[in-house]
Amino acid sequence: MRLAELSERSGVTTATIKYYLREGLLPPGERISATQAEYGEEHLRRLRLVRALVQVGRIPVATAREVLTAIDDDRTDQLTRIGTAVAALPQPAPPRRRDETVVTAEALAGELQRRLGWRIVVDNPAHQALVTALAALLRLGYPCTVEQLLPYGAAADGLAAHEIALIGEFASPTTQLEAAVALTVLYEPVLLSLRRLAQAEAATRQLRGPS
Amino acid sequence: MRLAELSERSGVTTATIKYYLREGLLPPGERISATQAEYGEEHLRRLRLVRALVQVGRIPVATAREVLTAIDDDRTDQLTRIGTAVAALPQPAPPRRRDETVVTAEALAGELQRRLGWRIVVDNPAHQALVTALAALLRLGYPCTVEQLLPYGAAADGLAAHEIALIGEFASPTTQLEAAVALTVLYEPVLLSLRRLAQAEAATRQLRGPS
Repeated sequence: MRLAELSERSGVTTATIKYYLREGLLPPGERISATQAEYGEEHLRRLRLVRALVQVGRIPVATAREVLTAIDDDRTDQLTRIGTAVAALPQPAPPRRRDETVVTAEALAGELQRRLGWRIVVDNPAHQALVTALAALLRLGYPCTVEQLLPYGAAADGLAAHEIALIGEFASPTTQLEAAVALTVLYEPVLLSLRRLAQAEAATRQLRGPS
Repeated sequence: MRLAELSERSGVTTATIKYYLREGLLPPGERISATQAEYGEEHLRRLRLVRALVQVGRIPVATAREVLTAIDDDRTDQLTRIGTAVAALPQPAPPRRRDETVVTAEALAGELQRRLGWRIVVDNPAHQALVTALAALLRLGYPCTVEQLLPYGAAADGLAAHEIALIGEFASPTTQLEAAVALTVLYEPVLLSLRRLAQAEAATRQLRGPS
């Protein structure tokens, strides 16, 4: 298809598509003349992912490019590609200095993951993000023990199994990688808004009694 | 205690405490002379909450003030206060225009909550945030059916029961309200980082086989 059709089918303006092409977020089309290029279904699919990252996830263009580069890096296996792509997504900043609280938070993050039966990968940015979040709880004196954290880990475990099954429904390794990244970003606000709704429901039930 | 002791015990500089006092994030101390005021344990506790909101949650000062005003509003009952306080926390913006996708997303959000046995409160900002998140999934053509969403709702339900129990351990209605707000903000990054770690673990198990 030509640029105009790609724009119509994706709902993205031709100016924005050209911008994504210049920024390397979209691979170039196949040149068919000096001024025209042909685009395929993979461009349509990639545009969808770029919009998930940039428009919905509000991820900076440079970060989105890193994520897509990891997806496309065919020198590595599927697992490394998915790990690198998800790790490139924005994460909370790691703690600025490694004080006593951070050391306690690291021990807590490790113990929690051991209890959940997970491998501990300290250079996973999500591990660092967890340590930062636990250090904030500890520093402010809010409850934060392995027992209190386990329900969150168990919930995440259940969701991950569901998500891996969902991603498995996509046909090829590349579409699976793209879906993994898009669903990671797009389901975060779903989960957080459902948590707040569930809290409101639980508070109402407890304070007003069952409906 | 005097300002200097409040600063020492909270780890917040006197300049920042004075700023919070001026901005109405902290109630004034009891004046004991023209230049000195006396502060109590409630100031220390409130400072902890303000830091959770402003420093960790990166919530704008004006928004934090709204949240605290709702907590302190003794004209309303506990349930209204908790609802108003949590609703005042930052949420994703609602959809800009109510097109066909938004209508579908609203129906989906309603059906999901019915299936979970929750009351549907359309003016809860979290309900609007859920509709926005579902509309983004639908618009980009990613999987988004009630069946696929139910595991997220069930996970949120389980966590809410745990959180209500956690909050119930705080002594007074006011400290419970403060804890509800602080834990809503502080546990969001815990949940999101655990989800990413669980995904990494599930992907590793599936692609490499059990350890």
